[in-house]
Amino acid sequence: MSSAEPISEQASREALLDALRQAIEARDRAAAVAIIERTDPDDRGWLIDRLDDEEQTALFELLPADDSAHLFDAINFAQSAEILEDLNPTSAAAIVEELDSDERADLLNELESEDSEAILSQLSPEAATETRLLMGYEEGTAGSLMFEEFLRFREDQTVGEVLEDLRANREEYSTYGVQYGYVVDAQGRLTGVVPMRNLVFARPNDRVRDVMIADPIAVRDTDTVDDLESMFEEHGLFGFPVVDAEGRLVGVVDREVLSEARQEQATEDLLKVQGLMGREELRSMPVLQRSGRRLSWLSINIVLNLIAASIIAMHEETLQAAIALAVFLPIISDMSGCSGNQAVAVSLRELSLGLVHPSEFLRVFRKEAVVGVLNGIALGILLGAIAAFWKGNVWLGLVVGGALALNTLVAACVGGLVPLVLRALRQDPALASGPILTTVTDMCGFFILLTLASQVLPHLS
Amino acid sequence: MSSAEPISEQASREALLDALRQAIEARDRAAAVAIIERTDPDDRGWLIDRLDDEEQTALFELLPADDSAHLFDAINFAQSAEILEDLNPTSAAAIVEELDSDERADLLNELESEDSEAILSQLSPEAATETRLLMGYEEGTAGSLMFEEFLRFREDQTVGEVLEDLRANREEYSTYGVQYGYVVDAQGRLTGVVPMRNLVFARPNDRVRDVMIADPIAVRDTDTVDDLESMFEEHGLFGFPVVDAEGRLVGVVDREVLSEARQEQATEDLLKVQGLMGREELRSMPVLQRSGRRLSWLSINIVLNLIAASIIAMHEETLQAAIALAVFLPIISDMSGCSGNQAVAVSLRELSLGLVHPSEFLRVFRKEAVVGVLNGIALGILLGAIAAFWKGNVWLGLVVGGALALNTLVAACVGGLVPLVLRALRQDPALASGPILTTVTDMCGFFILLTLASQVLPHLS
Repeated sequence: MSSAEPISEQASREALLDALRQAIEARDRAAAVAIIERTDPDDRGWLIDRLDDEEQTALFELLPADDSAHLFDAINFAQSAEILEDLNPTSAAAIVEELDSDERADLLNELESEDSEAILSQLSPEAATETRLLMGYEEGTAGSLMFEEFLRFREDQTVGEVLEDLRANREEYSTYGVQYGYVVDAQGRLTGVVPMRNLVFARPNDRVRDVMIADPIAVRDTDTVDDLESMFEEHGLFGFPVVDAEGRLVGVVDREVLSEARQEQATEDLLKVQGLMGREELRSMPVLQRSGRRLSWLSINIVLNLIAASIIAMHEETLQAAIALAVFLPIISDMSGCSGNQAVAVSLRELSLGLVHPSEFLRVFRKEAVVGVLNGIALGILLGAIAAFWKGNVWLGLVVGGALALNTLVAACVGGLVPLVLRALRQDPALASGPILTTVTDMCGFFILLTLASQVLPHLS
Repeated sequence: MSSAEPISEQASREALLDALRQAIEARDRAAAVAIIERTDPDDRGWLIDRLDDEEQTALFELLPADDSAHLFDAINFAQSAEILEDLNPTSAAAIVEELDSDERADLLNELESEDSEAILSQLSPEAATETRLLMGYEEGTAGSLMFEEFLRFREDQTVGEVLEDLRANREEYSTYGVQYGYVVDAQGRLTGVVPMRNLVFARPNDRVRDVMIADPIAVRDTDTVDDLESMFEEHGLFGFPVVDAEGRLVGVVDREVLSEARQEQATEDLLKVQGLMGREELRSMPVLQRSGRRLSWLSINIVLNLIAASIIAMHEETLQAAIALAVFLPIISDMSGCSGNQAVAVSLRELSLGLVHPSEFLRVFRKEAVVGVLNGIALGILLGAIAAFWKGNVWLGLVVGGALALNTLVAACVGGLVPLVLRALRQDPALASGPILTTVTDMCGFFILLTLASQVLPHLS
């Protein structure tokens, strides 16, 4: 991934890709497994990405299911979902069965419901039930983030039995990330936690209930990422048990899954801001799908652009009389967009940090207005001076500079407020703030420039 | 943080803020501590953010250092840095002393060097040495991410001594996040790891070296985030010991710190894309500082805009003869910017996933060209039809639609390639891609539209 990567690395990557293609063609399972093992884990995603759809399908139907599942860890989520969709349900189910419970539910939720149903129907009954349960949780809740790979003890077990179980399954448990065992009663309700170190100091005949910490802190399956974040902040713990409405232990969340959820959110927001919606685009995806997803955003945008440009159309005579203004229309549009986007970014960030609440309009307005005035004056003077100097016309400078100054103020205030309004209306501010902002600032900017110009038209032409 | 938050919550937040202000004014330490404890952890960041600079300084000089450090966890990084800068070095050092080692180094690295030196000189000698060491690591390396809060055993200790130590310090160790103890020789070189469960099954007289796993997998302090990510992918472990060039154990990294580093990167990229550079802006910061940071970006942008607009200035006669074109200049500019930004976003994402390497120009070009052609045709027909219909002039439709179609193709290709070029030149693609893209696409778009128009000018006017 380094920019100064030696040519040999690229060559070896290409050689592995060729070899993998041949192995797939020959349906040579052993060779395919060997090639993937020989590939740097960093390059495995690249390797799979460079196969076409048929090759990917053939590869994942060829590989043993646990190897396939392991490979899914190396590749991106959107890519895994694309591959799963193309596999026959039996192969897909065999792979899905090998995944961690939380990843399994996430992936199936990403598929069309007929695809995920087809796979679910081929899973083992326990895995299917567990997965359906996880799939039912709304995105961003503890239920959607929790995992089921944790140590669960019955409160009437003895420490000796527990240690025996730990010894017997140490292979499986070694991948578990939590330093606690969680204790349930006969009805599966959470009644305690046992730090591993308590087992160290206990006598083999002690009951789990005697060494556990009773009434542990737990989170509800419906708690949101924000709720979890404040729980982790408040209690210096690394994980929390998750319980359902009846107090039954249904999973565990830790700081890592929470941090991952935040990271996914940040990535999604970045893509949305740049005009990519829906499932993440990778260039290995079918071209019509890529084109279509991008067009869905562009076509909204062109309509908004036409609305903004209609302001110019209404002032054609002014423009005709002072054609120099046409040079400044795109500048005012772009600069106001930039100023506004800065304010949008600060509002989005402050919203996500809880530093501003959607009701605090007035504060944001005041704070943005001051910056808008200062930056408006600075930019207005700069652009105005250039315009005046270019045409040797002070009036042109006043009109252009004045329009940019005023519109910078408008852009900062609108940009600051739009995310708050969208959040208050329960819309996604990352997605809609940009287009709304630029439409409003374009309309305002064109209107201000052309109206100011029409007032002093004799001095401009 | 909920959008439908009851007015009472807001009122209680405001009441707490007023009470805190009074406590600060009265220098009433007990009251200040009590108010902060009574505040929902979610709202603590908000509470501190709403104090002005003098109040913040007074508060953090009033609170006990460990309370201040605890409060730093609830507030944002940029905010903590601002506060630290304003405190007197002695109070600042007392707080910094209480922070985790990795956080301490991050924060001090954010300050001006005279500020951080002043604080370092007031730290305990061990903390100062440790912090200077961590501060020396380049951002994004294992050394900059590692923490020093982990269990360290000497290989010649007995298991009994280790268990004694664990019991004696269980309070302190309970906040440690790793399920392993790390074993060093007399020179501090890493020689093994001890899973906690091995201590469970060992005899008290066993030496640590007898129950440890020798020659453990470790990472170098200079390894990058990418290196670490592939280590975690390859080995299903939760943490790795970090060693220096001499093999000495200097820290531990786990999945959580790695995930946080990725998340910080994503946030920073999002802010950069929207035109905010340098330390994160919060609206509680001084207005001149906020305005200045935003202007530094806007003034680059206005120069780029002027360059692009100079293309229009060179074609004033064409525009004068066919004033309707002026309506479409901002549309072509904005739409091409959107199309290009989509391609930028896909390239940034693929670069960060390792799915494209900076040398793979041709692949990106081919992949973008196809989408550019398809979307160009779709958008060109749409805008061309509207233009033709609006003025009842097919030639206008052809010129406008053709220009948008061509420039959509240009924008997709340029947008896809610019991040690769910047990465290959070791520049930050998140920061510079947007401005370079829009300048190029604006220039091309204006040039194509006005040149096409000049060819068929008699039909347009």
